[in-house]
Amino acid sequence: MTKSPAIAVMGASGRMGQMLISQVSAHEGMTLTGAVERAGHDWIGQDVGVAMGGAALGVIVTDDAAAAIGTASAIIDFTAPAATLAFAAHAAKSGAVHVIGTTGMTAEDIAKLEPFAEKTVIIRAGNMSLGVNLLTLLTKKVAAALDADFDIEIIEAHHHHKVDAPSGTALMLGEAAAQGRGVALEDVSDRGRDGITGARKRGDIGFAAIRGGDIVGEHDVMFAAPGERIVLRHIASDRTVFARGALKAALWGQGREAGAYDMLDVLGLNDA
Amino acid sequence: MTKSPAIAVMGASGRMGQMLISQVSAHEGMTLTGAVERAGHDWIGQDVGVAMGGAALGVIVTDDAAAAIGTASAIIDFTAPAATLAFAAHAAKSGAVHVIGTTGMTAEDIAKLEPFAEKTVIIRAGNMSLGVNLLTLLTKKVAAALDADFDIEIIEAHHHHKVDAPSGTALMLGEAAAQGRGVALEDVSDRGRDGITGARKRGDIGFAAIRGGDIVGEHDVMFAAPGERIVLRHIASDRTVFARGALKAALWGQGREAGAYDMLDVLGLNDA
Amino acid sequence: MTKSPAIAVMGASGRMGQMLISQVSAHEGMTLTGAVERAGHDWIGQDVGVAMGGAALGVIVTDDAAAAIGTASAIIDFTAPAATLAFAAHAAKSGAVHVIGTTGMTAEDIAKLEPFAEKTVIIRAGNMSLGVNLLTLLTKKVAAALDADFDIEIIEAHHHHKVDAPSGTALMLGEAAAQGRGVALEDVSDRGRDGITGARKRGDIGFAAIRGGDIVGEHDVMFAAPGERIVLRHIASDRTVFARGALKAALWGQGREAGAYDMLDVLGLNDA
Amino acid sequence: MTKSPAIAVMGASGRMGQMLISQVSAHEGMTLTGAVERAGHDWIGQDVGVAMGGAALGVIVTDDAAAAIGTASAIIDFTAPAATLAFAAHAAKSGAVHVIGTTGMTAEDIAKLEPFAEKTVIIRAGNMSLGVNLLTLLTKKVAAALDADFDIEIIEAHHHHKVDAPSGTALMLGEAAAQGRGVALEDVSDRGRDGITGARKRGDIGFAAIRGGDIVGEHDVMFAAPGERIVLRHIASDRTVFARGALKAALWGQGREAGAYDMLDVLGLNDA
Repeated sequence: MTKSPAIAVMGASGRMGQMLISQVSAHEGMTLTGAVERAGHDWIGQDVGVAMGGAALGVIVTDDAAAAIGTASAIIDFTAPAATLAFAAHAAKSGAVHVIGTTGMTAEDIAKLEPFAEKTVIIRAGNMSLGVNLLTLLTKKVAAALDADFDIEIIEAHHHHKVDAPSGTALMLGEAAAQGRGVALEDVSDRGRDGITGARKRGDIGFAAIRGGDIVGEHDVMFAAPGERIVLRHIASDRTVFARGALKAALWGQGREAGAYDMLDVLGLNDA
Repeated sequence: MTKSPAIAVMGASGRMGQMLISQVSAHEGMTLTGAVERAGHDWIGQDVGVAMGGAALGVIVTDDAAAAIGTASAIIDFTAPAATLAFAAHAAKSGAVHVIGTTGMTAEDIAKLEPFAEKTVIIRAGNMSLGVNLLTLLTKKVAAALDADFDIEIIEAHHHHKVDAPSGTALMLGEAAAQGRGVALEDVSDRGRDGITGARKRGDIGFAAIRGGDIVGEHDVMFAAPGERIVLRHIASDRTVFARGALKAALWGQGREAGAYDMLDVLGLNDA
Repeated sequence: MTKSPAIAVMGASGRMGQMLISQVSAHEGMTLTGAVERAGHDWIGQDVGVAMGGAALGVIVTDDAAAAIGTASAIIDFTAPAATLAFAAHAAKSGAVHVIGTTGMTAEDIAKLEPFAEKTVIIRAGNMSLGVNLLTLLTKKVAAALDADFDIEIIEAHHHHKVDAPSGTALMLGEAAAQGRGVALEDVSDRGRDGITGARKRGDIGFAAIRGGDIVGEHDVMFAAPGERIVLRHIASDRTVFARGALKAALWGQGREAGAYDMLDVLGLNDA
Repeated sequence: MTKSPAIAVMGASGRMGQMLISQVSAHEGMTLTGAVERAGHDWIGQDVGVAMGGAALGVIVTDDAAAAIGTASAIIDFTAPAATLAFAAHAAKSGAVHVIGTTGMTAEDIAKLEPFAEKTVIIRAGNMSLGVNLLTLLTKKVAAALDADFDIEIIEAHHHHKVDAPSGTALMLGEAAAQGRGVALEDVSDRGRDGITGARKRGDIGFAAIRGGDIVGEHDVMFAAPGERIVLRHIASDRTVFARGALKAALWGQGREAGAYDMLDVLGLNDA
């Protein structure tokens, strides 16, 4: 029996999966007990540490998600929407805390999580870094405090492999700004400026996307008025910040009442 | 009789004074009624607009501060501590709102304002821009939300004429960060790094000063942790933002209860 | 007879025109002798200083361009393409140096200037600031020194009145980068990213446009590779830098051989 | 016999040493043949890959530097001045290319390398990243092109473990700026601004140091004049850029004439 919470990592072979395996196994306050991959993956049956090219960690990669989840206090899941929904059913049955960093979930997918959140703790966020979640909160507050003399622009930079623009985090920041102003983002969003655009419309929220090198993720929310500007900036320089947020969420969820939570809950910022 | 508030500008010939004269005379919601300079100044007796090299504004520069203050609903004062204390006595007598942007006031000077604040509205701030005051508030809140894994650094850039470092605004931001953390700034302040400094001490608040060209004023508050950074930035590109804040304060103070206020009161941010 | 060169300003009532009038009349090494506006403009016949709301400058605004150009050693012209071509004919006849900051000139317009450049000195630039011209040169050199492991992105920010994106200066920088790489900009240009864009193509030159407040003009040329980035940045904080470049050009052109020049010639950087 | 150059890494257990081991062993164009540590180190006798916590690499860590250098085509050395001088003697004897990234070498230490550079290729640089070396070159050229209306400031940011300020790279950039201007850095250096400094002196080169989190290394060279600024910026986000530069140098040095070289030679920029 482990005293610290037992953690299973879903999608163990992916870039985030491997980082989570490393972080969980190195963390003094938790124990890695499961590493899950899809049936047929060539890591199945190997020690996950050895499969990653390092020392053995004493955990064999399995395709039996139900079993791995059944013995875990929390599962950490940065996979894909369909897999996440399947894992959520198992977690609801066993009572494991389900930390979800999966991106690309539709409103419909998210609605399907609701019945599971009545049975166990689900913590879901588009971006699990402490800094980005705090930035979102600040963006909403500043947008509420300033009037439309301040033009809002959201600028993001990412590595050259990224296939979509603006980033999901940039859109989340745009939503926060729109909420602060009491408008709907889709009514004021100004994306992909190019050519003869005409003058900027008062009240618009603009987006610009920069791509290059291996930039992990940088976001600026600029509020520009005549003679002065405020810029709220977040720079992620290491993907471990996303993993660390997930571990923090897994610990925070222990012993908590069933329900749907986000990172602001974990960070104690929802009352701020 | 003017329907809009009557405004007198103290120190009319200075750089801020001239800007205030221009802004007040161009503002639709107020009327310029006074322009004060010290006895013996060569602008005395001239129309203030003509003295500034432009068109006449119908207001003669005077050294009779008592008279100019006596007929004003508000006075705007970016002068020097001794002059400000003298003007405060006149304003307390006449009931004029006293907007103070004077820098270099000691704690003792500020204490001397207290009896006058029982008689009239005094609004005083080290920096009157909306953005900087909002930044100060954000700095305090973010410093309170984050632990000392986040190193706090305050970086400021100003024009090459500036004679002190760090800027008063940088120190104000440092105070806000220290308050957020519940520490005294003097215990954690790390200024003027140079040479073999040793590793940064956990919990310190660092300052760096950049000087060049005609930079009006730029301030960054950086919170840096392993793998991520939050930066709160303010850029003042035009000194009119300080004048505009003062005008806003003069209007806000009309009809308000006597007392000592700051720009967060004017901006409605003190409850935030 | 004036010892310093006699300068006429075309389009005297515009924002750039007024700034040029102020700069030329304040400059110790030149004399303002002409201020031209189009026929019917209400400034015609007034002293240009008075028309600008200041003190008289002793120069009456005229619509007789030929006469104003005929008595000038140099004309400074930030107007529109058709007007510029008409002024060029007059300058070629009189021998006045023609400094052209007019934007929006097509390749065809520029070709029409060629015969005039056989008769007098023409100095034309899309952006007359020292800094931007230097940045263009650096961009070309750095693009030539680095291979396509370095992704090139050009990011620009301007005030909310600007009607086109990317800025002309951003495109000039993009041209310089493409020349440095030995490719055609139109083959590699990636503008207005939005939606599912796919991964960035190796060798592309990306553009992003930010709009807000009264930003005069900021340009970043970023070269991003795995693990490192170089950024070449220019910040214009005051439109006078464009006027100052034009005055510098007007002086540089005095006594020089007829021909078509640009700001790199004026700055002595074309051999660099 | 290996066709690709045989590489030995000095100081294999250090942070840079381990990174070099990883990079060299993963590089298709070279072969790791040696891993050297000081006598008594507990890695001696182990496979270097296993000692690093990963898979075996087939190279046993040794304290016999002479033997490891004797069988290498190049050695890569980010150690300490005394060790570097000892290794240089061995390399001069065997003819191995000696790539030196060791910091803290005095002018005296560097002079002691001279006789060895008559026997073999020595490539030494304070910072081996392509970007920083290019930035140094640009700094010198821009400083030469601009007059002292442009104030030069060098701003650097590093992680909180760094014990000295300004960084060695910042000082290298300052030297380049001073050379461009034709002045001695010690005559114009303005470091550690704090308190009542007086106005900035024309011609000074200022330095500011920012410390926080795990920032790998960021350097800005700012040229600020009234109304405009040029900033040359380098961001290192991953220490591998220093290792990659060293590997590039090791390859570049193969078959080259004996002598003392730097990274600008390796990058082909010394004629630029």
